[in-house]
Amino acid sequence: MAGYAVSGGRVMWPASAGIETMPDNIWGIVLAGGRGTRFWPVSTRARPKQFIDLLGGGTLLQQTVRRLGALCSPARVLIVTGAEYSALAREQLPGIPEENILLEPCPRNTSASIGWAAGVMASRGAAGDLMAVVPSDHSIRPDEGFTSTLLRAAVPASEGWLMTLGIRPDRPATGYGYLEAGESMGGFLRVVSFREKPDAATAASYLAGGRHFWNAGIFMWKAEAILEEIGRLLPDLASGLTAVGTGPGCDPEVFGALPVISIDYGVMEKAGRVGMVEAAFEWDDVGDWPAARRAGIARGGILQVDSGDCTVWNPGRLTVILGVRGLSIVEAGDVTLVMSDEYSQKLRDVVAELERERPDLV
Amino acid sequence: MAGYAVSGGRVMWPASAGIETMPDNIWGIVLAGGRGTRFWPVSTRARPKQFIDLLGGGTLLQQTVRRLGALCSPARVLIVTGAEYSALAREQLPGIPEENILLEPCPRNTSASIGWAAGVMASRGAAGDLMAVVPSDHSIRPDEGFTSTLLRAAVPASEGWLMTLGIRPDRPATGYGYLEAGESMGGFLRVVSFREKPDAATAASYLAGGRHFWNAGIFMWKAEAILEEIGRLLPDLASGLTAVGTGPGCDPEVFGALPVISIDYGVMEKAGRVGMVEAAFEWDDVGDWPAARRAGIARGGILQVDSGDCTVWNPGRLTVILGVRGLSIVEAGDVTLVMSDEYSQKLRDVVAELERERPDLV
Repeated sequence: MAGYAVSGGRVMWPASAGIETMPDNIWGIVLAGGRGTRFWPVSTRARPKQFIDLLGGGTLLQQTVRRLGALCSPARVLIVTGAEYSALAREQLPGIPEENILLEPCPRNTSASIGWAAGVMASRGAAGDLMAVVPSDHSIRPDEGFTSTLLRAAVPASEGWLMTLGIRPDRPATGYGYLEAGESMGGFLRVVSFREKPDAATAASYLAGGRHFWNAGIFMWKAEAILEEIGRLLPDLASGLTAVGTGPGCDPEVFGALPVISIDYGVMEKAGRVGMVEAAFEWDDVGDWPAARRAGIARGGILQVDSGDCTVWNPGRLTVILGVRGLSIVEAGDVTLVMSDEYSQKLRDVVAELERERPDLV
Repeated sequence: MAGYAVSGGRVMWPASAGIETMPDNIWGIVLAGGRGTRFWPVSTRARPKQFIDLLGGGTLLQQTVRRLGALCSPARVLIVTGAEYSALAREQLPGIPEENILLEPCPRNTSASIGWAAGVMASRGAAGDLMAVVPSDHSIRPDEGFTSTLLRAAVPASEGWLMTLGIRPDRPATGYGYLEAGESMGGFLRVVSFREKPDAATAASYLAGGRHFWNAGIFMWKAEAILEEIGRLLPDLASGLTAVGTGPGCDPEVFGALPVISIDYGVMEKAGRVGMVEAAFEWDDVGDWPAARRAGIARGGILQVDSGDCTVWNPGRLTVILGVRGLSIVEAGDVTLVMSDEYSQKLRDVVAELERERPDLV
């Protein structure tokens, strides 16, 4: 594969050589609406995970937007986030036009966020342009691999395919969704099924089989293609989005009435012409404190004796660990969390509980 | 046993009814020279364990002195501590006369501390009085049991015996020294041997046998009796102490030249007429963070899920523990310590290491 034509052949890139000219038909859609409760007490309602410099080198949101820099100009970046994070988003992304920060009055899952962003594009005369849909809180390295992978996905996306990025598993992870790849379509693979968090045996068979990939939640398609599928598969959402309008704000009651459904479940699993390219980058969803350890977190000094596999977040202090393994030790505000790795997902429930009893801490 | 005569029958107490009159011939000798490195980072060089309110209700030193209140007036309490803790001791014990706070220029172990205190008593015309020698950093409950036990020990001590207090073991502890009790002498037991920290099998056999007791490091004897034994068994110490003088300060070079030896090893194991009374109180040496848990430490808020057996010290903050057991989680100054129980004794080595590299933290 020497190069790809994007959107009618306007620009050509030799895939191996990186980008020579920025395409003019790709929009970056950043999904920044999460709460990040599994990163409590650092991530709070007032400042969720994506607004935190968790891995160094800028907040996760800032890194995400920077990474899109080789694909689209700031005028073609849309941030979809909670209305309460409007100030944070503007402060952290001074280069993004204010009207490109779409403020959701409440979270309504990814179908609503993506459909809204596609509608905004259409309202700006870009229904035929491509949307690179990216979560705002993942770890991706290196940037060049991200760019080249999305450019490869752009080719079939330009022809109307709904493209996903697949990450080749290096372990039988049970916490991710999987894509099953089918026949090669020349430059990409057809996706034949989606599978949410499998059990351990299934995950092991996926790893051994080689046909299953992690679903990174990164997509590429034409705005008009996803709007068409939403209209066909989620007609209530489509009509609701018409009432929501084209932002950047909207009526809370109208938005709140939108159906709550993920794009994977609502559209991708049921659509035809769903394709995948394998990611040419290292990826982690940074879904909990142990994942942050994998992705390279280190905050505060650490002195360890006979210890290991610990996540430490303790800015400006020294943490001394003796004879402990598989722990996350996290300090923020008035809270210290010490958590065994096996409880990393349960943290969400604890935070939900605390939200009722000690809302000041959450 | 209806009652005991103390020092020539001046005062009689029915042992079962508590004290009716304070004896006038008992001195309290409080050994407060330790560094408490196993309680780092709360215990530091600037403020060691005995000067900290570790269990609530006053610092360990204050509780120790208060506990002596039923046995001797403040004029007959001697505090032996490091010269650098002079201000702390005065501040925490405003009722103790300044000349009763003996300041060691450097630690020279318990034979030196006790011998010095005995010499001070002799210089004040009290060579024939009794010394109740108590560490300053133990947990003892209830006070009444402490008082009645020491009064029982005072009887044979008045007749020249070197008396120790034995704690009946409730577990096969390997971290304590043991006393082996022999024949009953009527009101007390002869001690036939001392055994430092036994291995687990030996400790289990001690527990099963019923003749071994923990050595609490609490003693009762006449000042002249211990001075005589020191003169016989540790002649170098005896002559050194003569040069040291009778306090409350002394020449650092002269004190620093004293032999370094514990009273157990230097005197008790070799002396004749060593007796024991069984303690009528709960005792813990509060030797490390897990021991503090046994003794009832609780500092800072704790929220725990599927966790237990943890020591938490985190004043003014909330510690959330998820799925962890057998840990000490301690915050002080710029340091957070997370330590598995099995490493509680090793903490001393870590602190020694830090003392070279980060003296500001120790």
